[in-house]
Amino acid sequence: MTVTAPGRAVIVGTGLIGGSVGMALRARGWHVSGTDADDAAAHHALTLGALDRIGTDPGADVGFVATPVGAVAAVVQQLLAEGVAVVTDVGSVKARIVAAVPEARFIGGHPMAGSEQVGVAGARPDLFEGAAWVLTPGPGASDDALLALRGIVSSMGAEVLTLAPEDHDRLVAMVSHVPHLTAATLMRLAGQRAGEHRALLRLAAGGFRDMTRIAAGHPGIWPDICVENREAIVAVLDDLLAELTAMRAIVADSERGALYEVLDQARAARLNLPVSGDLPEDLAEVRVTIPDRPGALAEVTTLAATLGVNIYDLEIAHSGEGDRGVLVLLVATEAGGNLVDALAGRGVAAALDRLT
Amino acid sequence: MTVTAPGRAVIVGTGLIGGSVGMALRARGWHVSGTDADDAAAHHALTLGALDRIGTDPGADVGFVATPVGAVAAVVQQLLAEGVAVVTDVGSVKARIVAAVPEARFIGGHPMAGSEQVGVAGARPDLFEGAAWVLTPGPGASDDALLALRGIVSSMGAEVLTLAPEDHDRLVAMVSHVPHLTAATLMRLAGQRAGEHRALLRLAAGGFRDMTRIAAGHPGIWPDICVENREAIVAVLDDLLAELTAMRAIVADSERGALYEVLDQARAARLNLPVSGDLPEDLAEVRVTIPDRPGALAEVTTLAATLGVNIYDLEIAHSGEGDRGVLVLLVATEAGGNLVDALAGRGVAAALDRLT
Repeated sequence: MTVTAPGRAVIVGTGLIGGSVGMALRARGWHVSGTDADDAAAHHALTLGALDRIGTDPGADVGFVATPVGAVAAVVQQLLAEGVAVVTDVGSVKARIVAAVPEARFIGGHPMAGSEQVGVAGARPDLFEGAAWVLTPGPGASDDALLALRGIVSSMGAEVLTLAPEDHDRLVAMVSHVPHLTAATLMRLAGQRAGEHRALLRLAAGGFRDMTRIAAGHPGIWPDICVENREAIVAVLDDLLAELTAMRAIVADSERGALYEVLDQARAARLNLPVSGDLPEDLAEVRVTIPDRPGALAEVTTLAATLGVNIYDLEIAHSGEGDRGVLVLLVATEAGGNLVDALAGRGVAAALDRLT
Repeated sequence: MTVTAPGRAVIVGTGLIGGSVGMALRARGWHVSGTDADDAAAHHALTLGALDRIGTDPGADVGFVATPVGAVAAVVQQLLAEGVAVVTDVGSVKARIVAAVPEARFIGGHPMAGSEQVGVAGARPDLFEGAAWVLTPGPGASDDALLALRGIVSSMGAEVLTLAPEDHDRLVAMVSHVPHLTAATLMRLAGQRAGEHRALLRLAAGGFRDMTRIAAGHPGIWPDICVENREAIVAVLDDLLAELTAMRAIVADSERGALYEVLDQARAARLNLPVSGDLPEDLAEVRVTIPDRPGALAEVTTLAATLGVNIYDLEIAHSGEGDRGVLVLLVATEAGGNLVDALAGRGVAAALDRLT
């Protein structure tokens, strides 16, 4: 694996995510400074071992901004101005923030981990092990910044995906924001019925409990998320409303065959839901001659994510001919073949070496 | 607790539910016979200890019909004709079956337990511990049959609720059928998007996994359920569509306050979801002079369920004045007070004795 030498990090916002980043980095030898708008929260993080010290660190190699979404852009700009080498954030919606901070040393980010718990008390050093962590470089992002951040995030055990910010926002509307709003709507509807008939909630078996668990989360973050990602959420809600209306017609017309078919499709999709896990047995290296243009690294890794190619490791081998380098990606062999073909279609030279 | 002396049971349909009933009863000293349309399934149940023997038992005290829903009515009639004392079924929809079998010795039933697993391999003797088990007596059901069945079901560790069959069907449409169809619709929609963008499913974090878990179940039972419970499912789907349309408007208009409010209502409802568990500290006995009319026991227990009054134990104390008896219910004190008031409103005499 790529070795990311421990350095110095600064965290702004020491809640569940910020605190877990601090714990994960400190466990790997990093020196971690941090602040929080709430002094008590910062002290709590220090007590729990998420920080080495309270305060900012202009000489930090990386800055993680884990504040409420409304404050992110200003804090990112401030860390960049202080001199922090690479800055990222952990917000749930990415397009607006990436557009608001067009600096080369800022890479948007979104770890897909966390829980209903809010605050550093729920923080754990292994929160990101096996979780997906999306990086969303803007068009002006530097390859070096992306590469450095990718290494740091990978070192915490996360699987890194690079996506365009707008793609990220559409995808999380589908797998996170709309499911949350739907679970809350079902739970609220059942709660209203419970007023008429209190037996109802005692009938709620495991499936209903699983399905509505996320509705127990504190609503505090959702107004920001829904405003920031309004267009994508509305588009997915429209699709869901259309599909549920079709489902209603199937039930109303007692169309047994059609019902079986849609449920069978859903079942197949659920069984195909990827589980994070070990390396595949059949590994290959894809060597990509990085085109000499800005954002080339982001382009290649974003293409890989779009194709569903899981990148297990990544490094840049400098060729000795000036700044141009060769990007080496560790991937499953079959996926690697698809990636090489797709790169060739874009005029980017790449080669596959099977390792196993 | 009411002591139900072990006797003889017969089970038709030895899958997950039938097999678990067999294991639970055998663990309590019952002699259990059973059959399955699939001989291999019956032999498997025997091997796993869910049955004492393969075959029917005309002298059984109780018969459990756990066949696919289409076969239930005929099998129930057959067991009654053979001479089995009390017969129940375990189907997910109740109004049609109860209307189809208007015999005094048949009480419809629905254990709210089970899992994605199908077949006796998933059966366990403790499957019903703490689970709700609904009994749905029809208008002609005998009090003695209901009382006997209630004791047997309670002895397996289940919390018994008595509901009118139509009420049951409306409630499970809300907490089971529509949530299932919604989870499947969300999963299918995400699966379709995954075709365009394979990164999508790798972004699915714990909340999405929880929410769509039930969609992994085999679709086989759902055409029957949706046909049997069509009206109630369509009514709840209409309510859900209306609420989701309102949610869409809230997001489209960036109404932060309204969004916070509906999510907060959902959160409160989720946190109020009852957990099955121990006896409350503050217990009381409600003594009800059972009115001398058919179905009186079902009337009292159904009223209790409608009021959300959890009945922890129940027995009939015969008063020595002929057939008329006094029903003694063990309930939480506050709930018991509500029940006494509601009974008084219906002209039924009842008294409350605090025990603690």
